[in-house]
Amino acid sequence: MKIKFMQRAIELARQNITKLYGGPFGAVIVKDGKIIGEGSNEVVKNNDPTAHAEIVAIRRATQYLNSFQLEGCEIYCSCEPCPMCLGAIYWARPSKIYYAASREDASKANFDDSLIYKEINMSLNKRLIPIEQVLPEKAKEVFKEWNEGGIDIVY
Amino acid sequence: MKIKFMQRAIELARQNITKLYGGPFGAVIVKDGKIIGEGSNEVVKNNDPTAHAEIVAIRRATQYLNSFQLEGCEIYCSCEPCPMCLGAIYWARPSKIYYAASREDASKANFDDSLIYKEINMSLNKRLIPIEQVLPEKAKEVFKEWNEGGIDIVY
Repeated sequence: MKIKFMQRAIELARQNITKLYGGPFGAVIVKDGKIIGEGSNEVVKNNDPTAHAEIVAIRRATQYLNSFQLEGCEIYCSCEPCPMCLGAIYWARPSKIYYAASREDASKANFDDSLIYKEINMSLNKRLIPIEQVLPEKAKEVFKEWNEGGIDIVY
Repeated sequence: MKIKFMQRAIELARQNITKLYGGPFGAVIVKDGKIIGEGSNEVVKNNDPTAHAEIVAIRRATQYLNSFQLEGCEIYCSCEPCPMCLGAIYWARPSKIYYAASREDASKANFDDSLIYKEINMSLNKRLIPIEQVLPEKAKEVFKEWNEGGIDIVY
């Protein structure tokens, strides 16, 4: 199941290559084996610097659940969450985080978050919400396709 | 001017004591001496764990500017931003951050962010976006009023 859900998160990332809502990032939230919220990066589409895929997905899932928390849910992120998104995930309290591409993969693909990582130190070791990497190679393909598209990075 | 804008952020925090949209937190975004966006915590009102005052204010200000960044803006926060909000502020790129109550003050008032702070280390020293504390005593009064109201902390 985790492969299928991560494939969906990566597919959402890939769709943004042509939709140009923002960068090639996707996220899916799952409860009891069903997707209850998903999102892609909509920063450019909505003029909203907070509209990362994870935040969009969290907001949709909490609307669906009519709750401000995501108890018993899992979040699948096509790329390792940035500090903003990881903070949001902690506030939302899902039971597990899955990610595919790493932040280093994102950096190599010219998504340079180094300013933020310099300011907010993060370590993914020993987290209270378990975190697991799944399908990194599939997610990196999307970064490659994005860059091969010759699209200016807007975000 | 900075006193006036922080007073407004603190007033927004205070209004939440009776409105119960979420915790007693407020934020204001200023450009060229004018407020272009403001927000209070709306986590409970909107079932949105990402709707901290800073995120709400950033989203409104970027809508107003029709841009996904806050170049040349200042953000006034009634309390030191949590990691999620600090991440959002860095993505939005205002030129300066002001805050009133500290995270320790929030913790003493039973807003316990220790889980997040344990997971995402933050240091407010030597930040690339300058940060300055203003009116901490005024902001702490609001926490006191919140707790004296005997309201269960919902967030």
